[in-house]
Amino acid sequence: MLYSKQYFPGTREELVKKVSATMSPKRFSHVLRVEKVALELAEYYGEELEKTSVAALVHDYAKERPDEDFIRQIDKGKYSQDLKAYGNEIWHGIIGADFVAEELEISDEAILQAVRLHTTGAKEMSRLAQIIYVADFIEDGRDFPGVATARRLAFENLASAVAFETKHTLQFLIEKEVKVYPKTIETYNAWVAN
Amino acid sequence: MLYSKQYFPGTREELVKKVSATMSPKRFSHVLRVEKVALELAEYYGEELEKTSVAALVHDYAKERPDEDFIRQIDKGKYSQDLKAYGNEIWHGIIGADFVAEELEISDEAILQAVRLHTTGAKEMSRLAQIIYVADFIEDGRDFPGVATARRLAFENLASAVAFETKHTLQFLIEKEVKVYPKTIETYNAWVAN
Repeated sequence: MLYSKQYFPGTREELVKKVSATMSPKRFSHVLRVEKVALELAEYYGEELEKTSVAALVHDYAKERPDEDFIRQIDKGKYSQDLKAYGNEIWHGIIGADFVAEELEISDEAILQAVRLHTTGAKEMSRLAQIIYVADFIEDGRDFPGVATARRLAFENLASAVAFETKHTLQFLIEKEVKVYPKTIETYNAWVAN
Repeated sequence: MLYSKQYFPGTREELVKKVSATMSPKRFSHVLRVEKVALELAEYYGEELEKTSVAALVHDYAKERPDEDFIRQIDKGKYSQDLKAYGNEIWHGIIGADFVAEELEISDEAILQAVRLHTTGAKEMSRLAQIIYVADFIEDGRDFPGVATARRLAFENLASAVAFETKHTLQFLIEKEVKVYPKTIETYNAWVAN
């Protein structure tokens, strides 16, 4: 895809190079698969393709960063100290967007929000944020009971796909007795519960 | 049981009369069953019996009150307006304790906390609050998959019973796509998640 440089000051290839340098080849393949299905969703729902490509490519930018990087950000005072009780799984989105902004010179607020919310979701999510959230869940490499339903829903009704993913993720976390970030419940209450 | 009037200014029979006057006979039978197993737990774990009896008898005191009563309490400013998004299921404990205090002249803070927390639990719960929370879940009239495990755990390790109930309740709510009160997730994160 030819970038207009409206969202990232360089070509797609330059962005790919920067992103792939921060992670394992395995994770980078995931990122490319997220981009692929995110673009399909963007086309289907009329979202801007370049914006979607940039958001998808950078969504896991901070996934392999050391914990200290995130703790330093928390200690700067921008985030609640409560965030320290969580780990990379929560940090790489919410705080990771800061590194995307600073290091990749991406300032588009919709892209940064899509990165911030891609793991927990939120009460209110832009169409782009919904696309990245869902694409991350259904990309071709995913294989779990329910993924076929999630893929079908994604191309039927984006909000239903967000709801399905949120419910499924929460059930998975609780079954495994993993800590639940409060924002995930806000997402659930807004998108799933009646 | 002979009351010392330390916690309620009257006899147990007088308390029973006041409580049963506020609810259906069916609900009042539940209340008596909660008292029964709560006293067994209190005996087992060395909690004070009179306090336990009072807390058990009043835990659902506000369960059949009209919504307006709770909304009036919220509007007095003591509670977040967010509480309005919930209903009696959440209100009758958290706000219900106010009516227990005012109308039944019960001022013991441990009893009032046990009433407040009996549906949602909390990050920190006194032994009495744990007993009422668990007793409400396992009383003889309860019948659901897992109740036998809950009953066994209750007399093995009270904290494990709190954890089991919290996980089970959350799974039930999510399966049914019912709104989850944020405090329930705090309870889950503190008692269930690793």
